[in-house]
Amino acid sequence: MAILVLGTAALDTVRTPSGVRRKMLGGSAVHFAMSARLFTEVHLVAVVGADFPQAYIRFLKCRGVILDSLLRAGGKTFHWAGEYEGDLNTAITRKTELGVLAAFCPVITSEQRSIKNVFLANVDPDIQRELLERMDEPRLIAMDSMNYWIQNKRRSLMRMLKRVTIYVANDQEARLLTGERNLLNAGQSLLRMGPAMVLIKKGEHGVIFCSNKYMFSLPAFPTQRVIDPTGAGDTFAGGFMGYLARVNKLDDKSIKQALVYGTIAASFNVEAFGPERTSLLTMKDLGRRLQKYRQIVLF
Amino acid sequence: MAILVLGTAALDTVRTPSGVRRKMLGGSAVHFAMSARLFTEVHLVAVVGADFPQAYIRFLKCRGVILDSLLRAGGKTFHWAGEYEGDLNTAITRKTELGVLAAFCPVITSEQRSIKNVFLANVDPDIQRELLERMDEPRLIAMDSMNYWIQNKRRSLMRMLKRVTIYVANDQEARLLTGERNLLNAGQSLLRMGPAMVLIKKGEHGVIFCSNKYMFSLPAFPTQRVIDPTGAGDTFAGGFMGYLARVNKLDDKSIKQALVYGTIAASFNVEAFGPERTSLLTMKDLGRRLQKYRQIVLF
Repeated sequence: MAILVLGTAALDTVRTPSGVRRKMLGGSAVHFAMSARLFTEVHLVAVVGADFPQAYIRFLKCRGVILDSLLRAGGKTFHWAGEYEGDLNTAITRKTELGVLAAFCPVITSEQRSIKNVFLANVDPDIQRELLERMDEPRLIAMDSMNYWIQNKRRSLMRMLKRVTIYVANDQEARLLTGERNLLNAGQSLLRMGPAMVLIKKGEHGVIFCSNKYMFSLPAFPTQRVIDPTGAGDTFAGGFMGYLARVNKLDDKSIKQALVYGTIAASFNVEAFGPERTSLLTMKDLGRRLQKYRQIVLF
Repeated sequence: MAILVLGTAALDTVRTPSGVRRKMLGGSAVHFAMSARLFTEVHLVAVVGADFPQAYIRFLKCRGVILDSLLRAGGKTFHWAGEYEGDLNTAITRKTELGVLAAFCPVITSEQRSIKNVFLANVDPDIQRELLERMDEPRLIAMDSMNYWIQNKRRSLMRMLKRVTIYVANDQEARLLTGERNLLNAGQSLLRMGPAMVLIKKGEHGVIFCSNKYMFSLPAFPTQRVIDPTGAGDTFAGGFMGYLARVNKLDDKSIKQALVYGTIAASFNVEAFGPERTSLLTMKDLGRRLQKYRQIVLF
């Protein structure tokens, strides 16, 4: 089963203790696609500006990402500049230039309307809603967001939470949206806002998943080579949603396995700048690291 | 196989968002004993002052803790006062009154000299060394420490690291001692300092264990009721060491299972003030929660 991902295709300028990359390919939908493509067909819905390099389009196409709904508009591509210090857990944003993203209205093809698995990566919740209104009847809708929308578009975000199956947040976002410090309480509080399932990403500390029926907790894959964590959360979501789309099930066993694949995919993301490592990823790489992860976690 | 634990028996004054307790029973050796006693015989080596309530002695005796080497000295019992705010992850120390601990010289009985499992909980590394010199030939020595000794008795601490099998630290201590931000790098660096195994406790984020042969990572047992985390690390160590002493093995399977028991024991500790919950703990409680933990973690 194919996946449709709505999000950003961006130019990222990133500085970490390991170096700098200027205007490299980035964005939530791109990072998502890099891992989801290993499991199923990925349709990317985003907008780029006139300055978006043709080489990046080729890069995505070569990796099988379907770009029928990647709009090119007059203006500049969304540009994020940020840096990481110390433990690389928190990004310090230096610049956010929305460019063509400011007036983005998602358009999809008539074939894409019937896609059953949808990931609404971090964009304005009103844009997320507009996309949903163009879809027929998705079976599984998962949604991400960020602090900015929680603070500035809370009502739109809350309305969206009632329409999605899975809300994906990081620990800070979950705390900000609910006012709860304890992440399990935050998870319970988020469930009451609408989604049947809540996935809270804790960066290097792994992930917590909860529904009204069960709860899972998994540590991250321990890695010594953290080069650039940008996009790790979206890479996680791509592995997670990719697996669920492939098995076309939502039972607890499939959810757990999907969380494991998300964990493994994200661990590759942080080992290089942008999608440098994940763009080379194969199912064999995932499988090999999954074996290691089993040894590290299972008892 | 019995365990001997060297550490503190203290009076703790703790304030958390759930309330206050004044001069309740606390201390590293006490918290350790509350979980270790479920697995094996625990011999406690510590000093208390003239003000240490007889009721606390009875409390420990009733729970089977062997107090032959609990000294009572003239003076005041070690008193720690602290509080927790917000997410309860970090204690803010308000008062540390060493009292009789300042001149503590550990003494053990001749029978205790031959105990094979030793846990050196957080006290001055010179006191830890003195105890070791009184022991015959322990099979397994694990050692904890804290920021204060890392900063003020680094040389003594480093000497001790060469003599122990397992060094137990929390994430802050591991980073402080090694200068490494990445915990896996910190773990590798600690291994080079001497111990064959390193256990890094991450509080609500679980635990990482490494040796030159393997690495394990486990999440904490997720709990919504965090009342008072004081002593959670020592309770963890008690479950961990208790299990290892009982099975009398140090292979990877036993280590993993021991980490799981430590995780489960610690999750009970945080649910009440001081040893209020852990003092009531039974193996049946541990077993029941272990089942839940398996559902949460295993895939």
